[in-house]
Amino acid sequence: MKYVLNVQLGPNFMTEDPDDYRGYVVTNGSYNLDDVIRMVKEEGVETSEATIKASVTRVNRKAAQLAVSGHNVNTGLVYLQPMIKGRFYDTVWDPAKHSVYVVATQGADIREALADVEVRILGEKGEAMQLFTITNLVNGNTDGYLTGGRNAEIKGNAIKIDGEDESVGLFFTKTDTKEAVKIPEEFIVVNEPSRVIILVPDTLEPGEYEVSITTQYGYGRNLRKTPRTSILPLPVVVE
Amino acid sequence: MKYVLNVQLGPNFMTEDPDDYRGYVVTNGSYNLDDVIRMVKEEGVETSEATIKASVTRVNRKAAQLAVSGHNVNTGLVYLQPMIKGRFYDTVWDPAKHSVYVVATQGADIREALADVEVRILGEKGEAMQLFTITNLVNGNTDGYLTGGRNAEIKGNAIKIDGEDESVGLFFTKTDTKEAVKIPEEFIVVNEPSRVIILVPDTLEPGEYEVSITTQYGYGRNLRKTPRTSILPLPVVVE
Repeated sequence: MKYVLNVQLGPNFMTEDPDDYRGYVVTNGSYNLDDVIRMVKEEGVETSEATIKASVTRVNRKAAQLAVSGHNVNTGLVYLQPMIKGRFYDTVWDPAKHSVYVVATQGADIREALADVEVRILGEKGEAMQLFTITNLVNGNTDGYLTGGRNAEIKGNAIKIDGEDESVGLFFTKTDTKEAVKIPEEFIVVNEPSRVIILVPDTLEPGEYEVSITTQYGYGRNLRKTPRTSILPLPVVVE
Repeated sequence: MKYVLNVQLGPNFMTEDPDDYRGYVVTNGSYNLDDVIRMVKEEGVETSEATIKASVTRVNRKAAQLAVSGHNVNTGLVYLQPMIKGRFYDTVWDPAKHSVYVVATQGADIREALADVEVRILGEKGEAMQLFTITNLVNGNTDGYLTGGRNAEIKGNAIKIDGEDESVGLFFTKTDTKEAVKIPEEFIVVNEPSRVIILVPDTLEPGEYEVSITTQYGYGRNLRKTPRTSILPLPVVVE
Protein backbone atom coordinates (compact mmCIF):
# COMPACT_ATOMS: atom_id res chain seq x y z
CA MET A 1 0.00 0.00 0.00
CA LYS A 2 1.23 3.47 -0.94
CA TYR A 3 0.75 6.45 1.34
CA VAL A 4 0.44 9.72 -0.56
CA LEU A 5 2.09 12.82 0.83
CA ASN A 6 1.33 16.15 -0.81
CA VAL A 7 4.07 18.74 -0.65
CA GLN A 8 4.06 22.43 -1.49
CA LEU A 9 7.12 24.60 -1.93
CA GLY A 10 7.58 27.69 0.19
CA PRO A 11 10.30 30.10 1.19
CA ASN A 12 13.28 28.69 3.05
CA PHE A 13 13.55 30.75 6.23
CA MET A 14 16.89 29.13 7.03
CA THR A 15 18.77 30.82 4.20
CA GLU A 16 18.87 34.27 2.61
CA ASP A 17 18.83 32.83 -0.92
CA PRO A 18 15.52 33.86 -2.56
CA ASP A 19 15.75 31.02 -5.13
CA ASP A 20 16.02 28.37 -2.47
CA TYR A 21 12.76 26.71 -1.48
CA ARG A 22 11.76 24.20 1.13
CA GLY A 23 9.08 21.57 0.84
CA TYR A 24 6.16 21.91 3.23
CA VAL A 25 3.80 19.03 3.77
CA VAL A 26 0.17 19.83 2.98
CA THR A 27 -1.61 18.84 6.17
CA ASN A 28 -4.72 16.72 5.74
CA GLY A 29 -5.79 17.22 9.32
CA SER A 30 -4.95 16.22 12.84
CA TYR A 31 -5.76 13.07 14.75
CA ASN A 32 -5.58 12.26 18.43
CA LEU A 33 -5.28 8.90 20.16
CA ASP A 34 -9.05 8.33 20.16
CA ASP A 35 -9.19 8.91 16.41
CA VAL A 36 -6.36 6.46 15.81
CA ILE A 37 -7.97 3.84 18.05
CA ARG A 38 -11.29 4.24 16.23
CA MET A 39 -9.54 3.62 12.91
CA VAL A 40 -7.75 0.55 14.28
CA LYS A 41 -11.07 -0.73 15.61
CA GLU A 42 -12.76 -0.15 12.23
CA GLU A 43 -10.18 -2.43 10.64
CA GLY A 44 -11.77 -5.27 12.58
CA VAL A 45 -9.91 -5.78 15.83
CA GLU A 46 -11.76 -7.72 18.55
CA THR A 47 -10.31 -5.89 21.54
CA SER A 48 -12.63 -3.12 22.77
CA GLU A 49 -11.73 0.53 22.23
CA ALA A 50 -11.58 1.03 26.00
CA THR A 51 -9.07 -1.81 26.44
CA ILE A 52 -6.95 -0.58 23.54
CA LYS A 53 -6.94 2.93 24.97
CA ALA A 54 -6.10 1.77 28.50
CA SER A 55 -3.27 -0.40 27.13
CA VAL A 56 -1.77 2.31 24.94
CA THR A 57 -2.08 4.99 27.61
CA ARG A 58 -0.47 2.82 30.29
CA VAL A 59 2.40 1.88 27.98
CA ASN A 60 2.89 5.50 26.85
CA ARG A 61 2.95 6.82 30.42
CA LYS A 62 5.35 4.11 31.55
CA ALA A 63 7.60 4.85 28.57
CA ALA A 64 7.56 8.56 29.48
CA GLN A 65 8.40 7.79 33.13
CA LEU A 66 11.27 5.51 32.12
CA ALA A 67 12.64 8.17 29.77
CA VAL A 68 12.61 10.94 32.37
CA SER A 69 14.36 8.65 34.86
CA GLY A 70 17.33 8.17 32.57
CA HIS A 71 16.40 5.33 30.21
CA ASN A 72 16.37 5.09 26.48
CA VAL A 73 13.04 3.65 25.40
CA ASN A 74 12.13 2.11 22.07
CA THR A 75 8.34 1.91 21.71
CA GLY A 76 8.52 0.78 18.09
CA LEU A 77 6.97 4.09 17.03
CA VAL A 78 9.71 6.28 18.52
CA TYR A 79 12.92 6.15 20.48
CA LEU A 80 12.85 8.33 23.57
CA GLN A 81 16.01 9.78 25.01
CA PRO A 82 16.23 12.27 27.88
CA MET A 83 18.41 15.31 27.25
CA ILE A 84 19.50 18.43 29.09
CA LYS A 85 19.08 21.94 27.71
CA GLY A 86 21.25 24.84 28.78
CA ARG A 87 24.93 25.57 29.32
CA PHE A 88 26.78 24.91 32.55
CA TYR A 89 29.63 27.01 33.91
CA ASP A 90 29.55 25.22 37.29
CA THR A 91 27.93 22.09 38.71
CA VAL A 92 24.77 23.79 39.99
CA TRP A 93 21.41 22.95 38.47
CA ASP A 94 19.50 26.17 37.88
CA PRO A 95 15.88 25.67 36.75
CA ALA A 96 15.96 29.15 35.18
CA LYS A 97 18.80 28.12 32.84
CA HIS A 98 18.59 24.34 32.64
CA SER A 99 15.81 21.99 31.72
CA VAL A 100 15.16 18.36 30.94
CA TYR A 101 13.45 17.40 27.73
CA VAL A 102 12.88 14.18 25.88
CA VAL A 103 14.02 13.76 22.31
CA ALA A 104 11.82 11.47 20.28
CA THR A 105 13.28 9.98 17.11
CA GLN A 106 11.40 8.03 14.49
CA GLY A 107 11.37 4.29 15.16
CA ALA A 108 10.85 1.15 13.10
CA ASP A 109 7.09 1.68 12.64
CA ILE A 110 7.71 5.06 11.04
CA ARG A 111 10.62 3.79 8.94
CA GLU A 112 8.38 1.04 7.59
CA ALA A 113 5.59 3.47 6.72
CA LEU A 114 8.09 5.87 5.09
CA ALA A 115 9.22 3.09 2.77
CA ASP A 116 5.76 3.19 1.17
CA VAL A 117 5.36 6.93 0.71
CA GLU A 118 4.70 8.51 -2.64
CA VAL A 119 5.43 12.25 -2.64
CA ARG A 120 3.43 14.57 -4.91
CA ILE A 121 4.53 18.16 -5.37
CA LEU A 122 1.41 20.27 -5.74
CA GLY A 123 0.61 23.77 -6.88
CA GLU A 124 2.69 26.75 -7.71
CA LYS A 125 5.12 28.36 -5.36
CA GLY A 126 3.42 31.20 -3.54
CA GLU A 127 -0.09 30.00 -4.39
CA ALA A 128 -1.01 27.75 -1.52
CA MET A 129 -2.09 29.03 1.84
CA GLN A 130 -0.18 27.36 4.64
CA LEU A 131 0.90 28.11 8.20
CA PHE A 132 4.51 26.99 8.65
CA THR A 133 5.81 27.86 12.11
CA ILE A 134 5.04 29.78 15.28
CA THR A 135 7.77 31.49 17.29
CA ASN A 136 7.45 32.57 20.90
CA LEU A 137 9.03 36.02 20.71
CA VAL A 138 9.97 35.83 24.42
CA ASN A 139 12.73 33.32 23.74
CA GLY A 140 12.75 32.60 20.01
CA ASN A 141 11.60 29.02 20.56
CA THR A 142 9.62 27.30 17.82
CA ASP A 143 8.56 24.27 19.87
CA GLY A 144 5.02 25.53 20.27
CA TYR A 145 5.29 26.72 23.89
CA LEU A 146 3.67 30.16 24.05
CA THR A 147 3.52 32.66 26.87
CA GLY A 148 0.20 34.35 27.68
CA GLY A 149 0.45 38.15 27.53
CA ARG A 150 3.48 38.04 25.21
CA ASN A 151 3.95 38.09 21.44
CA ALA A 152 4.22 35.19 19.03
CA GLU A 153 5.02 35.24 15.32
CA ILE A 154 3.40 32.95 12.78
CA LYS A 155 5.14 32.44 9.44
CA GLY A 156 3.43 31.05 6.42
CA ASN A 157 2.26 31.62 2.91
CA ALA A 158 -0.78 33.76 2.00
CA ILE A 159 -1.84 33.83 5.64
CA LYS A 160 -2.87 37.49 5.85
CA ILE A 161 -6.23 37.63 7.63
CA ASP A 162 -8.56 39.40 5.22
CA GLY A 163 -12.17 39.37 4.03
CA GLU A 164 -15.64 39.86 5.45
CA ASP A 165 -16.78 36.25 5.55
CA GLU A 166 -17.81 35.40 9.10
CA SER A 167 -15.48 32.38 9.17
CA VAL A 168 -12.42 34.62 8.69
CA GLY A 169 -10.04 34.96 11.65
CA LEU A 170 -7.24 33.50 13.70
CA PHE A 171 -8.39 30.77 16.06
CA PHE A 172 -7.00 28.89 19.04
CA THR A 173 -8.94 25.65 19.39
CA LYS A 174 -8.51 23.65 22.60
CA THR A 175 -7.43 20.16 21.50
CA ASP A 176 -9.37 18.36 24.23
CA THR A 177 -12.70 20.23 24.23
CA LYS A 178 -12.52 21.47 20.58
CA GLU A 179 -13.67 24.86 21.86
CA ALA A 180 -12.45 27.58 19.47
CA VAL A 181 -11.36 31.02 20.68
CA LYS A 182 -11.19 33.73 18.02
CA ILE A 183 -8.24 36.04 18.67
CA PRO A 184 -9.62 39.62 18.80
CA GLU A 185 -8.43 41.95 16.02
CA GLU A 186 -6.57 44.26 18.44
CA PHE A 187 -4.35 41.29 19.44
CA ILE A 188 -3.18 40.88 15.83
CA VAL A 189 -0.37 43.41 15.66
CA VAL A 190 1.21 42.49 12.30
CA ASN A 191 -0.94 41.05 9.49
CA GLU A 192 1.08 40.39 6.35
CA PRO A 193 0.94 37.74 3.60
CA SER A 194 3.81 35.74 5.06
CA ARG A 195 3.85 36.89 8.68
CA VAL A 196 1.28 37.41 11.40
CA ILE A 197 2.31 38.60 14.86
CA ILE A 198 -0.15 38.23 17.71
CA LEU A 199 -0.26 39.07 21.36
CA VAL A 200 -1.20 35.78 23.01
CA PRO A 201 -4.21 36.74 25.18
CA ASP A 202 -3.38 36.17 28.84
CA THR A 203 -7.02 35.20 29.27
CA LEU A 204 -6.41 31.96 27.36
CA GLU A 205 -6.69 28.98 29.68
CA PRO A 206 -3.32 27.18 29.92
CA GLY A 207 -3.29 24.03 27.81
CA GLU A 208 -2.93 22.66 24.34
CA TYR A 209 -4.42 24.40 21.31
CA GLU A 210 -4.58 24.01 17.56
CA VAL A 211 -3.86 27.31 15.81
CA SER A 212 -5.63 28.06 12.53
CA ILE A 213 -6.16 30.95 10.18
CA THR A 214 -9.15 31.29 7.86
CA THR A 215 -8.83 34.00 5.25
CA GLN A 216 -10.07 35.20 1.87
CA TYR A 217 -6.65 36.64 1.03
CA GLY A 218 -5.14 35.20 -2.14
CA TYR A 219 -2.29 37.37 -3.51
CA GLY A 220 -4.54 38.75 -6.31
CA ARG A 221 -6.14 42.18 -6.24
CA ASN A 222 -9.48 40.69 -5.30
CA LEU A 223 -10.37 38.64 -2.28
CA ARG A 224 -11.18 34.98 -2.84
CA LYS A 225 -14.89 34.19 -2.77
CA THR A 226 -14.31 31.07 -0.69
CA PRO A 227 -12.19 31.44 2.43
CA ARG A 228 -9.33 29.01 2.92
CA THR A 229 -8.17 27.56 6.23
CA SER A 230 -4.74 26.34 7.27
CA ILE A 231 -3.82 24.73 10.58
CA LEU A 232 -0.43 25.07 12.19
CA PRO A 233 1.26 21.65 11.87
CA LEU A 234 2.17 21.39 15.56
CA PRO A 235 -0.25 22.11 18.41
CA VAL A 236 0.81 24.93 20.72
CA VAL A 237 0.89 24.87 24.50
CA VAL A 238 -0.12 28.05 26.31
CA GLU A 239 1.64 28.29 29.64
CA MET B 1 6.30 10.29 42.80
CA LYS B 2 9.67 11.76 41.88
CA TYR B 3 11.70 10.43 38.96
CA VAL B 4 15.44 10.84 39.48
CA LEU B 5 17.60 11.85 36.54
CA ASN B 6 21.38 11.73 36.98
CA VAL B 7 23.34 14.21 34.90
CA GLN B 8 27.05 14.51 34.24
CA LEU B 9 28.77 17.50 32.73
CA GLY B 10 30.85 17.10 29.60
CA PRO B 11 32.36 19.24 26.86
CA ASN B 12 29.99 21.30 24.74
CA PHE B 13 30.76 20.34 21.14
CA MET B 14 28.52 23.15 19.88
CA THR B 15 30.81 25.96 21.05
CA GLU B 16 34.54 26.65 21.07
CA ASP B 17 34.44 27.94 24.66
CA PRO B 18 36.42 25.47 26.85
CA ASP B 19 34.66 26.67 30.03
CA ASP B 20 31.27 25.93 28.65
CA TYR B 21 29.83 22.53 29.58
CA ARG B 22 26.71 20.65 28.63
CA GLY B 23 24.75 18.28 30.80
CA TYR B 24 24.64 14.68 29.67
CA VAL B 25 22.10 12.28 31.10
CA VAL B 26 23.61 9.22 32.74
CA THR B 27 21.84 6.38 31.00
CA ASN B 28 20.44 3.67 33.24
CA GLY B 29 19.80 1.31 30.36
CA SER B 30 17.52 0.78 27.42
CA TYR B 31 14.06 -0.69 27.24
CA ASN B 32 12.01 -1.87 24.32
CA LEU B 33 8.24 -2.25 24.00
CA ASP B 34 8.24 -5.74 25.51
CA ASP B 35 10.09 -4.48 28.58
CA VAL B 36 7.65 -1.60 29.02
CA ILE B 37 4.66 -3.92 28.64
CA ARG B 38 6.12 -6.33 31.21
CA MET B 39 6.44 -3.47 33.69
CA VAL B 40 2.90 -2.29 33.04
CA LYS B 41 1.69 -5.86 33.52
CA GLU B 42 3.62 -6.17 36.80
CA GLU B 43 1.73 -3.16 38.11
CA GLY B 44 -1.36 -5.36 38.07
CA VAL B 45 -3.21 -4.87 34.82
CA GLU B 46 -5.70 -7.59 33.87
CA THR B 47 -5.25 -7.39 30.11
CA SER B 48 -2.78 -10.00 28.81
CA GLU B 49 0.66 -8.96 27.60
CA ALA B 50 -0.22 -10.26 24.14
CA THR B 51 -3.35 -8.09 23.95
CA ILE B 52 -1.49 -5.03 25.23
CA LYS B 53 1.26 -5.57 22.68
CA ALA B 54 -1.17 -6.10 19.80
CA SER B 55 -3.08 -2.95 20.79
CA VAL B 56 -0.01 -0.76 21.13
CA THR B 57 1.58 -2.06 17.94
CA ARG B 58 -1.59 -1.55 15.89
CA VAL B 59 -2.04 1.97 17.23
CA ASN B 60 1.62 2.84 16.68
CA ARG B 61 1.59 1.55 13.10
CA LYS B 62 -1.64 3.36 12.29
CA ALA B 63 -0.22 6.57 13.81
CA ALA B 64 2.90 6.17 11.63
CA GLN B 65 0.80 5.57 8.51
CA LEU B 66 -1.35 8.64 9.22
CA ALA B 67 1.75 10.78 9.77
CA VAL B 68 3.40 9.76 6.50
CA SER B 69 0.17 10.46 4.63
CA GLY B 70 0.13 14.08 5.72
CA HIS B 71 -1.54 14.11 9.14
CA ASN B 72 -0.45 15.50 12.45
CA VAL B 73 -0.96 12.82 15.05
CA ASN B 74 -1.11 13.23 18.81
CA THR B 75 -0.65 9.85 20.52
CA GLY B 76 -0.45 11.37 23.99
CA LEU B 77 3.20 10.31 24.21
CA VAL B 78 4.32 12.27 21.15
CA TYR B 79 3.10 14.52 18.38
CA LEU B 80 4.04 13.29 14.94
CA GLN B 81 4.46 15.68 12.06
CA PRO B 82 5.72 14.78 8.58
CA MET B 83 8.46 17.03 7.23
CA ILE B 84 10.55 17.34 4.08
CA LYS B 85 14.34 17.44 4.11
CA GLY B 86 16.35 19.06 1.33
CA ARG B 87 16.32 22.25 -0.70
CA PHE B 88 14.33 22.76 -3.87
CA TYR B 89 15.41 24.89 -6.82
CA ASP B 90 12.59 23.55 -9.01
CA THR B 91 9.41 21.55 -8.49
CA VAL B 92 10.95 18.13 -9.14
CA TRP B 93 11.18 15.57 -6.32
CA ASP B 94 14.64 14.01 -6.39
CA PRO B 95 15.06 11.09 -3.96
CA ALA B 96 18.82 11.73 -3.96
CA LYS B 97 18.29 15.25 -2.55
CA HIS B 98 14.90 15.13 -0.87
CA SER B 99 13.43 12.91 1.76
CA VAL B 100 10.43 12.61 4.04
CA TYR B 101 10.90 12.24 7.76
CA VAL B 102 8.64 12.42 10.76
CA VAL B 103 9.36 14.83 13.57
CA ALA B 104 8.24 13.55 16.95
CA THR B 105 7.78 16.10 19.73
CA GLN B 106 7.13 15.35 23.37
CA GLY B 107 3.43 15.10 24.19
CA ALA B 108 1.32 15.41 27.33
CA ASP B 109 2.47 12.08 28.85
CA ILE B 110 6.09 13.24 28.73
CA ARG B 111 5.25 16.74 29.98
CA GLU B 112 3.47 15.18 32.97
CA ALA B 113 6.41 12.92 33.78
CA LEU B 114 8.86 15.83 33.39
CA ALA B 115 6.94 17.77 36.05
CA ASP B 116 8.06 15.15 38.58
CA VAL B 117 11.75 14.94 37.71
CA GLU B 118 14.46 15.60 40.24
CA VAL B 119 17.83 16.25 38.59
CA ARG B 120 21.05 15.24 40.36
CA ILE B 121 24.38 16.42 39.01
CA LEU B 122 26.90 13.66 39.64
CA GLY B 123 30.64 13.36 39.60
CA GLU B 124 33.39 15.60 38.44
CA LYS B 125 33.71 16.92 34.95
CA GLY B 126 35.90 14.62 32.91
CA GLU B 127 35.53 11.72 35.32
CA ALA B 128 32.55 9.81 34.05
CA MET B 129 32.70 7.50 31.09
CA GLN B 130 29.93 8.22 28.63
CA LEU B 131 29.24 7.84 24.92
CA PHE B 132 27.57 11.00 23.66
CA THR B 133 27.00 10.87 19.91
CA ILE B 134 27.78 8.93 16.75
CA THR B 135 28.29 10.66 13.42
CA ASN B 136 28.08 8.95 10.05
CA LEU B 137 31.13 10.44 8.34
CA VAL B 138 29.56 9.88 4.90
CA ASN B 139 27.08 12.72 5.43
CA GLY B 140 27.72 14.18 8.89
CA ASN B 141 24.35 12.95 10.16
CA THR B 142 23.97 12.20 13.85
CA ASP B 143 20.59 10.49 13.62
CA GLY B 144 22.11 7.04 14.08
CA TYR B 145 21.91 5.88 10.46
CA LEU B 146 25.26 4.28 9.61
CA THR B 147 26.61 3.04 6.32
CA GLY B 148 28.33 -0.37 6.18
CA GLY B 149 31.88 -0.15 4.82
CA ARG B 150 32.19 3.56 5.77
CA ASN B 151 33.48 5.43 8.80
CA ALA B 152 31.59 6.64 11.84
CA GLU B 153 32.82 8.82 14.69
CA ILE B 154 31.81 8.32 18.31
CA LYS B 155 32.25 11.22 20.71
CA GLY B 156 32.27 10.82 24.45
CA ASN B 157 34.16 11.08 27.67
CA ALA B 158 36.86 8.59 28.75
CA ILE B 159 35.80 6.21 25.96
CA LYS B 160 39.28 5.14 24.81
CA ILE B 161 39.22 1.36 24.44
CA ASP B 162 42.00 0.11 26.69
CA GLY B 163 42.85 -2.80 29.01
CA GLU B 164 43.29 -6.53 28.85
CA ASP B 165 40.07 -7.58 30.54
CA GLU B 166 38.19 -9.88 28.19
CA SER B 167 35.05 -7.73 28.42
CA VAL B 168 36.88 -4.74 26.89
CA GLY B 169 35.84 -3.70 23.39
CA LEU B 170 33.41 -1.87 21.16
CA PHE B 171 30.22 -3.81 20.57
CA PHE B 172 27.25 -3.65 18.21
CA THR B 173 24.38 -5.53 19.83
CA LYS B 174 21.34 -6.33 17.67
CA THR B 175 18.34 -4.87 19.52
CA ASP B 176 15.98 -7.69 18.53
CA THR B 177 18.15 -10.78 19.06
CA LYS B 178 20.53 -9.22 21.66
CA GLU B 179 23.39 -10.83 19.69
CA ALA B 180 26.59 -8.83 20.29
CA VAL B 181 29.22 -8.34 17.59
CA LYS B 182 32.63 -7.18 18.80
CA ILE B 183 34.17 -4.73 16.32
CA PRO B 184 37.64 -6.11 15.39
CA GLU B 185 40.58 -3.97 16.45
CA GLU B 186 41.64 -3.21 12.86
CA PHE B 187 38.26 -1.51 12.30
CA ILE B 188 38.98 0.97 15.12
CA VAL B 189 41.01 3.61 13.31
CA VAL B 190 41.11 6.36 15.97
CA ASN B 191 41.03 5.47 19.67
CA GLU B 192 41.24 8.55 21.88
CA PRO B 193 39.77 9.51 25.28
CA SER B 194 37.02 11.62 23.73
CA ARG B 195 36.83 10.26 20.18
CA VAL B 196 36.70 6.83 18.59
CA ILE B 197 36.47 6.45 14.82
CA ILE B 198 35.47 3.09 13.42
CA LEU B 199 34.98 1.56 10.02
CA VAL B 200 31.48 0.11 10.18
CA PRO B 201 32.01 -3.52 9.04
CA ASP B 202 30.10 -4.15 5.82
CA THR B 203 29.52 -7.67 7.12
CA LEU B 204 27.10 -6.34 9.76
CA GLU B 205 23.57 -7.43 8.98
CA PRO B 206 21.36 -4.40 8.22
CA GLY B 207 19.18 -3.52 11.19
CA GLU B 208 19.07 -1.84 14.53
CA TYR B 209 21.94 -2.08 17.03
CA GLU B 210 22.91 -0.78 20.44
CA VAL B 211 26.49 0.52 20.43
CA SER B 212 28.55 0.14 23.60
CA ILE B 213 32.13 0.51 24.72
CA THR B 214 33.64 -1.36 27.65
CA THR B 215 37.03 -0.09 28.77
CA GLN B 216 39.47 0.05 31.66
CA TYR B 217 40.66 3.52 30.59
CA GLY B 218 40.20 6.16 33.28
CA TYR B 219 42.33 9.29 32.64
CA GLY B 220 44.86 8.25 35.35
CA ARG B 221 48.24 6.70 34.62
CA ASN B 222 46.98 3.27 35.55
CA LEU B 223 44.16 1.34 34.03
CA ARG B 224 41.07 0.83 36.16
CA LYS B 225 40.79 -2.61 37.72
CA THR B 226 37.10 -2.83 36.92
CA PRO B 227 36.08 -2.07 33.33
CA ARG B 228 33.27 0.41 32.80
CA THR B 229 30.62 0.23 30.07
CA SER B 230 28.69 3.00 28.41
CA ILE B 231 25.91 2.58 25.86
CA LEU B 232 25.23 5.10 23.11
CA PRO B 233 21.96 6.82 24.05
CA LEU B 234 20.32 6.27 20.68
CA PRO B 235 20.31 2.92 18.85
CA VAL B 236 21.96 2.98 15.45
CA VAL B 237 20.58 1.60 12.20
CA VAL B 238 23.02 -0.06 9.84
CA GLU B 239 21.81 0.29 6.27
